[in-house]
Amino acid sequence: MARIVMKFGGTSMAGIERIRHVASLVKREVEAGNQVAVVVSAMAGETDRLIQFCREASSLYDAREYDVVVASGEQVTSGLLAITLQGMGLNARSYMGWQLPIRTTTAHSAALIDEIDVEVLEAAFEQGGVAVIPGFQGVAADGSVATLGRGGSDTSAVAIAAAMKADRCDIYTDVDGVYTTDPRIVPRARKLPVVTYEEMLELASVGAKVLQTRSVGLAMRENMPIKVLSSFEDRPGTMIVADSEIEEHGMERQLITGVAHDKNEALITLMGLPNTPGEAAAIFAPMAEAGINVDMIVQSVPRAGEKTDMTFTVPRASLAQAADILERLKDKIGFSEMLTDTAVSKISIVGVGMRSNPGVAATMFQTLADRQINILAITTSEIKVSVLIHEDYTELAVRVLHTAYGLDQDVEG
Amino acid sequence: MARIVMKFGGTSMAGIERIRHVASLVKREVEAGNQVAVVVSAMAGETDRLIQFCREASSLYDAREYDVVVASGEQVTSGLLAITLQGMGLNARSYMGWQLPIRTTTAHSAALIDEIDVEVLEAAFEQGGVAVIPGFQGVAADGSVATLGRGGSDTSAVAIAAAMKADRCDIYTDVDGVYTTDPRIVPRARKLPVVTYEEMLELASVGAKVLQTRSVGLAMRENMPIKVLSSFEDRPGTMIVADSEIEEHGMERQLITGVAHDKNEALITLMGLPNTPGEAAAIFAPMAEAGINVDMIVQSVPRAGEKTDMTFTVPRASLAQAADILERLKDKIGFSEMLTDTAVSKISIVGVGMRSNPGVAATMFQTLADRQINILAITTSEIKVSVLIHEDYTELAVRVLHTAYGLDQDVEG
Repeated sequence: MARIVMKFGGTSMAGIERIRHVASLVKREVEAGNQVAVVVSAMAGETDRLIQFCREASSLYDAREYDVVVASGEQVTSGLLAITLQGMGLNARSYMGWQLPIRTTTAHSAALIDEIDVEVLEAAFEQGGVAVIPGFQGVAADGSVATLGRGGSDTSAVAIAAAMKADRCDIYTDVDGVYTTDPRIVPRARKLPVVTYEEMLELASVGAKVLQTRSVGLAMRENMPIKVLSSFEDRPGTMIVADSEIEEHGMERQLITGVAHDKNEALITLMGLPNTPGEAAAIFAPMAEAGINVDMIVQSVPRAGEKTDMTFTVPRASLAQAADILERLKDKIGFSEMLTDTAVSKISIVGVGMRSNPGVAATMFQTLADRQINILAITTSEIKVSVLIHEDYTELAVRVLHTAYGLDQDVEG
Repeated sequence: MARIVMKFGGTSMAGIERIRHVASLVKREVEAGNQVAVVVSAMAGETDRLIQFCREASSLYDAREYDVVVASGEQVTSGLLAITLQGMGLNARSYMGWQLPIRTTTAHSAALIDEIDVEVLEAAFEQGGVAVIPGFQGVAADGSVATLGRGGSDTSAVAIAAAMKADRCDIYTDVDGVYTTDPRIVPRARKLPVVTYEEMLELASVGAKVLQTRSVGLAMRENMPIKVLSSFEDRPGTMIVADSEIEEHGMERQLITGVAHDKNEALITLMGLPNTPGEAAAIFAPMAEAGINVDMIVQSVPRAGEKTDMTFTVPRASLAQAADILERLKDKIGFSEMLTDTAVSKISIVGVGMRSNPGVAATMFQTLADRQINILAITTSEIKVSVLIHEDYTELAVRVLHTAYGLDQDVEG
């Protein structure tokens, strides 16, 4: 017997037919003797519909009331899944965030989970019951409904799994696992049977859209194994576990786990900057104040007495705002010209194995150089190297790196 | 300064444009210095959509989970109205049934309101706040969401008005008041400036669809004045008050307040019944057990030693079920033949004035006889006389009775 959380996203809950399929997956786990809590998203499209209502009601909508409105989407799917499970003979019941309760901060629409009371869940499990819980929401200390922000259902699932000391948290989604790279670009991409939390965090942060980054971070802190699998196809998925447990899963350690790409960055170059201390702070402090996430930064090495340039990336969605802020501070910062470019792409290689292999980055640069792909910026972390290139070369770069690191799947001939 | 509850139905809340209009009506009351709680229904069509989901999920859906699903409709409109009111500069906030709380029985999907805690509302009013409350729902003693059944929002509004000791409860709907009869049948129907609770109860029970019967009964017990008015047209509505207060409203008492019709009845006749004691019980006890509401009953006066007939009405929706039960009991009851007829219509005259005027019923029968309209059954109450006629004569009967009791509006020539 295992105790598991099963989480289903909006595509899996889109309509009664799909909910019925989800119920059959839940039933299988219960019949295998497991204790199951199910965390559900709203039907695909429903949250967008509700957000649109709020926007139309008032452009300056109150986050507290926004939460009341959007939380209804998961309330509906929770009730419907409980009804469907009951119709299949299971002892199922829904529990809203305020009923457990799932206590959150009062930061409406971006709340954090403080604490989850699992007493009623324990009581339900003792009677062979299945608990259905709406993801993405809880109740704040003042008794108001609070949502965790878009994609928060993954985080709800991991937090509930940790609170109820589950053996694992199964995230059912519309892909069947984590791949070495995007299979639409590289048909020979391989599904990874297992990755580490850190690798998944890095992959999620650079464009692999399988899981919400925040949920992976939480799973890592709580050491809660996650399994990513498809709700549509009955195939083994990908386990996400701690670095120390990789070998228990019988995996030979790879140098590189995956190659990711991200076209959501935009490049800003400020030219003719004075070469004075505090220049970087003058640029980046206003970005931070506006909540704009600056990623890659390249400063041309200045020669004494000469002007210098600064290049950095921001999310494409924030480019207009960032450019506007910088333009207004032009005199204060002292740059002569600002260039922006959205035709860029960030290519990343991720792998715990690179820690002990100093040649990994060099292989990346050489591989790209061999194809005449120009590198605009570079950032590195412990287990990741990212380069910014022209958008047109995205697919080529992903393919050649995937081959260079030996990730291509063997095709039987 | 007055303290009022404003209640808006599904048609008034159907979409952001209409919600904005509702908000403007609320704003007007607040700016007039009133303390306002608003009770809202779900958007028109939404509750049906959610019920349909439940039915598809399982034909034997659990009422507790059904309540979780359908309660979401009013949650959405409450949040959206609060947002809209805030956008107009008002200090508005939504309060779910479980947040106040509105305590109900655990009879899911048909719960009764036990008690409403108005402490948070009082606090809101003290700070000049407007409270928006989803109708139709509350929280049961076990902490589960419970709904009051279809049309329960009127009842919510009256119960909240009573709990907060409001001066009146304004029910905004898609008609602009209570009329002497259906204006689609009698163009000269008059809008009543005031009716008594008892008259409204009788009118509602015989087909005037303005208010949910239960809400009128509650208002009568709590002596809470109701005002029915249109959310679309700015015209005086109809006040519903206690009998003793009618004259305070400067009204000359009418003999008859209104003429109503109801095509939702079906006639069952059992022929060749034995003329023995307990025969009526043998027929109607099984109807009561099946929850079928038997209305008008006519028994032919039996002569000693002869067989007798029994005629009665049931709601059309229950006819098939009733006929099925009776057919199975045919031998036990001992009737020789069963006839059913759905082409019938119940015409009622209602008025507190008839208590002291014994000739009222006779006028009704004579008026119908003059037009060769055959009466199939008759029932009377203190302030109502109902007759069952052939459906084809519905409009004619309503028109001639409306004229006979002097209800036609004077048309300026």
